[in-house]
Amino acid sequence: MTSQELDARFAAAKAIAQEAGAMALDYFNRRETLTIETKHDLQDVVSIADRNTEKLIRRRVEAAFPQDGCLGEEFGHVAGTSGYTWIVDPIDGTAPFVNGMPNWCVSVAVAHAGKPVIGIIAAPCHGELYAAAAGRGAELDGKALKLDSSRTVQNGLTGIGANSHVTPDSVGKMVSELLRMEGNFIRNGSGALMLAYVAAGRLVGYYEPYMHAWDCFAGFCLVQEAGGWYHDFPIEGARLTEGAPVVAAAPGARHALERLAGLA
Amino acid sequence: MTSQELDARFAAAKAIAQEAGAMALDYFNRRETLTIETKHDLQDVVSIADRNTEKLIRRRVEAAFPQDGCLGEEFGHVAGTSGYTWIVDPIDGTAPFVNGMPNWCVSVAVAHAGKPVIGIIAAPCHGELYAAAAGRGAELDGKALKLDSSRTVQNGLTGIGANSHVTPDSVGKMVSELLRMEGNFIRNGSGALMLAYVAAGRLVGYYEPYMHAWDCFAGFCLVQEAGGWYHDFPIEGARLTEGAPVVAAAPGARHALERLAGLA
Repeated sequence: MTSQELDARFAAAKAIAQEAGAMALDYFNRRETLTIETKHDLQDVVSIADRNTEKLIRRRVEAAFPQDGCLGEEFGHVAGTSGYTWIVDPIDGTAPFVNGMPNWCVSVAVAHAGKPVIGIIAAPCHGELYAAAAGRGAELDGKALKLDSSRTVQNGLTGIGANSHVTPDSVGKMVSELLRMEGNFIRNGSGALMLAYVAAGRLVGYYEPYMHAWDCFAGFCLVQEAGGWYHDFPIEGARLTEGAPVVAAAPGARHALERLAGLA
Repeated sequence: MTSQELDARFAAAKAIAQEAGAMALDYFNRRETLTIETKHDLQDVVSIADRNTEKLIRRRVEAAFPQDGCLGEEFGHVAGTSGYTWIVDPIDGTAPFVNGMPNWCVSVAVAHAGKPVIGIIAAPCHGELYAAAAGRGAELDGKALKLDSSRTVQNGLTGIGANSHVTPDSVGKMVSELLRMEGNFIRNGSGALMLAYVAAGRLVGYYEPYMHAWDCFAGFCLVQEAGGWYHDFPIEGARLTEGAPVVAAAPGARHALERLAGLA
């Protein structure tokens, strides 16, 4: 991986995420005209906004970096030859989106050698762009993000999430356990956005027992570059499209989040 | 209660909530300069933004309706003689506010004969104003809100909340039970804002085992005027400053929420 390769993709990823965010926001503003389809169950929704936003991102990536691979939530994986793979969730938080809540985002990551080296999250309803690249730090709308080591699960808020891969009882247990630690939870409906909030110091950590790479890779890069930690999320081979636990935290919340996730 | 009395207070409440929202937003934009104090525990925070926003609201109410009572989260209850009581939470969602998240609001209600007859919720980070008055309907930025009876706990999102009055185990149980019903939960950190979202059809219901009148009275009026239901919340005498369970729902989610709250 050369500096030049990374910088070219970093600049492109920011521009692509902003363009995709504008397209998704346009759909959001006329969401009453969208047909909402369900996937696994009634809570798992999708619309043409997700599909067309991902198509736009894929077109832009193919045009600029035809040798790069691409993995997206809606259209799966296309392998590349450059060693770089774009990992994209066109709309993370589709349920808030279709229900008219502002907590959704566009998540664009680039992975190299199995690790996220670029992470961009656009939150169009809030006019915010989170951007990070390996060794280049994390920023929110151009302002550097640096985590405060005095923040803990006890004096901050922790984001959580769960989907139908997780049993109702284990979600309840995870909530009770966090509260017993004297923490408190937020669940705004978008895991990727909550990971960006960890990088911005708005949440002290995030835990979700089962997510896919497209939900978390941009957030991981942001958290790491802001000075935080995330639990290794392997994507080699077939694991690229499988789910795994997601745990990310500010330094002072890491141990508690590892305990909550059963890792320590 | 005359039409004229109600209309005068409705117009004033909208103007006051907007002015208070602008003041709170100004504090939010320079939140790094605020001293954060804790109340009951580390998760229960307050700042000068809450206090000065409530002072502004109280000054405006006293000037326009000197005979009205006023109850606010930060400065308690001053009885009136007109039969009208303003019930105010200057910043609902102080934890998201001080942590830099946009999910907070200003909640201004007017009660008469123990019931909310005016409900205004300003969400300054989203530029939204929710307004309702008894018999006059509910609106969001001037657009009428009317709940869709096809929405249920199964095909929509349910808001939940809990504070330190509720045990960790019972919060976990409530989450598990909602998921077992094939519902899904949102907790954005502001109960008042989530009640406004129920009125707007963004959430199908809201349940929190213990809230105060200032957290929920504006939301109740909004939900009722949008065609939804809320569980009676008594405020006579000493109960005015005590907590009680809050349950509100769109028509198709009422039965499930009553079950979740142990009311049916």
